[in-house]
Amino acid sequence: MEQTPARSESHPASTRLDSYVDRYAARTAGMTASEIRALFAVASRPEVVSLAGGMPNISGLPLDLVGSVISDLVADHGTTALQYGSGQGDPVLREQICDVMRLEGIEAHPDDVVVTVGSQQAVDLVTRIFCDPGDVVLCEAPSYVGALGVFKSFQADVVHVEMDADGLVPEALRQAITAVKAAGKTIKFLYTIPNFHNPAGVTLTAERRPEILAICREHDILVLEDNPYGLLGFEGEPMRALRADEAEGVIYLGSFSKTFSPGIRVGWALAPHAVREKLVLAQESATLCPPSFSQMAVSAYLTAHDWQGQIKQMREMYRERRDAMMQALDDFMPAACSWNTPDGGFFVWVTLPPGIDAKAMLPRAVTARVAYVPGTAFFADGYGSSSMRLSFCFPTPERIREGVRRLAGVLDDEMELRATFGAGAPVHGLEARSGYDAPSTDLS
Amino acid sequence: MEQTPARSESHPASTRLDSYVDRYAARTAGMTASEIRALFAVASRPEVVSLAGGMPNISGLPLDLVGSVISDLVADHGTTALQYGSGQGDPVLREQICDVMRLEGIEAHPDDVVVTVGSQQAVDLVTRIFCDPGDVVLCEAPSYVGALGVFKSFQADVVHVEMDADGLVPEALRQAITAVKAAGKTIKFLYTIPNFHNPAGVTLTAERRPEILAICREHDILVLEDNPYGLLGFEGEPMRALRADEAEGVIYLGSFSKTFSPGIRVGWALAPHAVREKLVLAQESATLCPPSFSQMAVSAYLTAHDWQGQIKQMREMYRERRDAMMQALDDFMPAACSWNTPDGGFFVWVTLPPGIDAKAMLPRAVTARVAYVPGTAFFADGYGSSSMRLSFCFPTPERIREGVRRLAGVLDDEMELRATFGAGAPVHGLEARSGYDAPSTDLS
Repeated sequence: MEQTPARSESHPASTRLDSYVDRYAARTAGMTASEIRALFAVASRPEVVSLAGGMPNISGLPLDLVGSVISDLVADHGTTALQYGSGQGDPVLREQICDVMRLEGIEAHPDDVVVTVGSQQAVDLVTRIFCDPGDVVLCEAPSYVGALGVFKSFQADVVHVEMDADGLVPEALRQAITAVKAAGKTIKFLYTIPNFHNPAGVTLTAERRPEILAICREHDILVLEDNPYGLLGFEGEPMRALRADEAEGVIYLGSFSKTFSPGIRVGWALAPHAVREKLVLAQESATLCPPSFSQMAVSAYLTAHDWQGQIKQMREMYRERRDAMMQALDDFMPAACSWNTPDGGFFVWVTLPPGIDAKAMLPRAVTARVAYVPGTAFFADGYGSSSMRLSFCFPTPERIREGVRRLAGVLDDEMELRATFGAGAPVHGLEARSGYDAPSTDLS
Repeated sequence: MEQTPARSESHPASTRLDSYVDRYAARTAGMTASEIRALFAVASRPEVVSLAGGMPNISGLPLDLVGSVISDLVADHGTTALQYGSGQGDPVLREQICDVMRLEGIEAHPDDVVVTVGSQQAVDLVTRIFCDPGDVVLCEAPSYVGALGVFKSFQADVVHVEMDADGLVPEALRQAITAVKAAGKTIKFLYTIPNFHNPAGVTLTAERRPEILAICREHDILVLEDNPYGLLGFEGEPMRALRADEAEGVIYLGSFSKTFSPGIRVGWALAPHAVREKLVLAQESATLCPPSFSQMAVSAYLTAHDWQGQIKQMREMYRERRDAMMQALDDFMPAACSWNTPDGGFFVWVTLPPGIDAKAMLPRAVTARVAYVPGTAFFADGYGSSSMRLSFCFPTPERIREGVRRLAGVLDDEMELRATFGAGAPVHGLEARSGYDAPSTDLS
């Protein structure tokens, strides 16, 4: 299917399939479909339990209310909702976005908010305005596959920074900055997901937050705080955002994809004023304006519905699924595996016994009717082969349990195989540094 | 407000407003707000007749039907419409898009269609995958301001090719190709708007179409056929698309912005298969997926409504406005002005008497409560100062007549001033080649 440069070189015949192969921009070499993409098409069959995707479960939404709110919107304000809007986004929605961010301690002005086509587009626009080829973006290790794809497509170099159970490790951040500077490279920003990390499932502790901010301030490094899951914590109040304590040095990204609807594609960036101006110009170039219709639909929903109550229901639903996954992991997984217990969000990060390659094992897992995302997808440098991301957001608790049971069976077989054939059994890609395998768009 | 590099250099103090000014990517220097942008904010006041904007008049849409169709969509298919969708776009909508394109002689497979966030995003994605800095894009002279902005933001060099009343001039295209090749530059594609050109209002004749295609085939130059107005002709049947006679060498861009709703932001690219794959990867990087909700809303509208009948009504409404503008130009404009009679679309291109600078005159026009877009906006090289684009799409026929009357009054004053003070009167920018002035997003 895909036309990666590597394939074209090794199979000259395949270049005939793409007569444009020599004409693409250099950045397009960074846009390649994953080898495991085809597998995910199989994994979307109903008999397969997918622990792979990051799709929110939106079955609890009040669809009748949403439909009626939108119908009224079109009837009463259709010539506005269906017309071009501002490149920066709907002013009323930007005020409501400030209300949402206030839950995380952020005091912001609507004029500093830019609405985007999902927060994915915000990552894209920020990278577009900041990154020349060869610039460095610091990312957690592992990091969100969709952001890595953007950085790669703008030919930025990703440098991963170690995380532990408390999130990004300050000392590792210092070391990375020193090393990048010593190499004569320019760091454009730190991309971080402080809450309920995708894929690692961990949260940056309150204690570490000021330290991370201080390091970035000291080295004049912009922070790109990506926070799609911040309101989906399972205990207590939302964490205070990094942006709440640092207005000039942080671009904050938010989204309605996980708290309302991903298909409506409304996210946002809150940025220092001058950066906001550039983002609006970039948005105008990219789309003229984000969809008025979607924005006004979100705005009407927020006005008409107890959206905070809805989020509370979502949190409870996801907590139940997290619990089902934890229980199943405890009950079924081989003792040599380890994982964390996420306090919110959608994901658990599982580390496999030494020598087990999650990517090589994936076809056998799909055959056993369970899917996951191999850890390599979340590294720009080929690491992560002995890890996997499991999602508990979309399948029911029963299906999660069944999926983990199947996965544990595949792992048992794999470990038995290795025990029988010893270290001579092939280890695929353990040390490969050939780039990451983006599994389609991380949606399914 | 904006932080162009030029302003920062000449006013060091202003750099303090943007502490990020030295950190942006090189491409961001190409993203600048126009000097005339502030004027357009004034021009949006109700007392000003705006002949500047490209906003379609959607007041004829059956809003009750649209509202009820969307309400049913959410009630019956909400968990799909509000969920993430395919990066390539909704399969049902892609089939319907093929039906739309069939009206222009295009036989295409839905698998070769990529849905985009308006066709603006299609221009962005195509440029992203093809253009390295310094690559050349051939464009008509003048060309669409939003496309010029994209090319500039990807650091491509625009080379304009002459048009006349029959559209792009084949001999001029040959000469441009020869000149660019002689300069050792790489042409990535020809960007063309064959029907009811924005801003020139002309249409490429049926006779010239095979010749343009033959030249591009001979020189192996990809054609980017941007066709937002193709179904909005005032006489006879739609023109046959370039893509209808050349599948491998043409990327065709379409949009529902002018035939249904711009605020819903649904456009598309039809591309050769290999290019389509790259476009999908670029779309996934840019937005994960185009909005499912908007796409399914368009799809439901097309299914529920006599959309071809609706377009017929729109054509008649726009023809009446075109006629009102032609009559007013005949009745009021100074004899030394000239213009064309567009057979469809939204725009008329007016050429002013020698020495009258449309951009310099704009503040006086806005004071006289009429707005237009100066011709320089539509050139990448500073030409166009003695031209202007007038839109007849949005104001009523009465307002169009009043707007042209006011404009003619301003022109009369301007010409009298020149007659009094002779050639010594200042001529602003006539020979300037300092870049174009994008008036915001060409929306208002």
